[in-house]
Amino acid sequence: MSETDRAERLVAVFDLVGPLYRRAWRQVEQDAPVEGLTVGLRAVLSLLRQHGPATVPQLGRTLALSRQFVQRTINDGAALGLVEPVPNPAHRKSSLIRLTDRGGAAMDALVGRERAVLREVGRDLSDDDVEACVRVLARLLRHLDDMGH
Amino acid sequence: MSETDRAERLVAVFDLVGPLYRRAWRQVEQDAPVEGLTVGLRAVLSLLRQHGPATVPQLGRTLALSRQFVQRTINDGAALGLVEPVPNPAHRKSSLIRLTDRGGAAMDALVGRERAVLREVGRDLSDDDVEACVRVLARLLRHLDDMGH
Repeated sequence: MSETDRAERLVAVFDLVGPLYRRAWRQVEQDAPVEGLTVGLRAVLSLLRQHGPATVPQLGRTLALSRQFVQRTINDGAALGLVEPVPNPAHRKSSLIRLTDRGGAAMDALVGRERAVLREVGRDLSDDDVEACVRVLARLLRHLDDMGH
Repeated sequence: MSETDRAERLVAVFDLVGPLYRRAWRQVEQDAPVEGLTVGLRAVLSLLRQHGPATVPQLGRTLALSRQFVQRTINDGAALGLVEPVPNPAHRKSSLIRLTDRGGAAMDALVGRERAVLREVGRDLSDDDVEACVRVLARLLRHLDDMGH
């Protein structure tokens, strides 16, 4: 494939990422096991679940979201009893945010449901295709990250 | 790979789609050759450029955006002189939206710039990986579409 043709196919990747993001977003808000669990909050809770407590700036960087947006999302999550601030031993001024028991349980329920759906979709896909997809998306993200700095 | 492992890898795909969408979004708004060209407007203009004039409901369906959001986006685009309504021979009540010359030129400039970037990123990716990525994302989108109906 020529470089130009491959660029065309990457345009096709981006043309899929937008609708996919928006539909998945709507599905998350529709299926949420907790009233008020938005897609932004889900992203934050998922990260806390995978990697443990983190500061607002750390969450913002990893999720490509502004610090202000993450802070608002954390406030919403705290009001729902899903996250709470705890003292940060490394940095007195920037609290660590962690999942509450309720937040952990809500995420376990959501992730369990999502995996059941993805197990079903995955039946039609080959392992190689899925790995290739992860490689391509990670590469595109790294490139956009580099452009932004 | 077990079904459970493959579902995990699809979670990884979704964990990339969010940040990728948001970073690409920011890049579009930063690089826009026309002041006020948002990512929603870019998506609409891109579709009109690829497939010709369409109605608001058609655009909404293809982009997984609400009709209200598309209508607002079209209003913004019309105010910028990028799109215009034309009579719809098939349906008297639902105008067709088409690109103006100015809208076409703005999209040509934007797409040209995006392709230059993607040609560069594409050098690190194999054709097979990119095709696999398109297959996986299209399958996921189809599945979410089916769930929504």
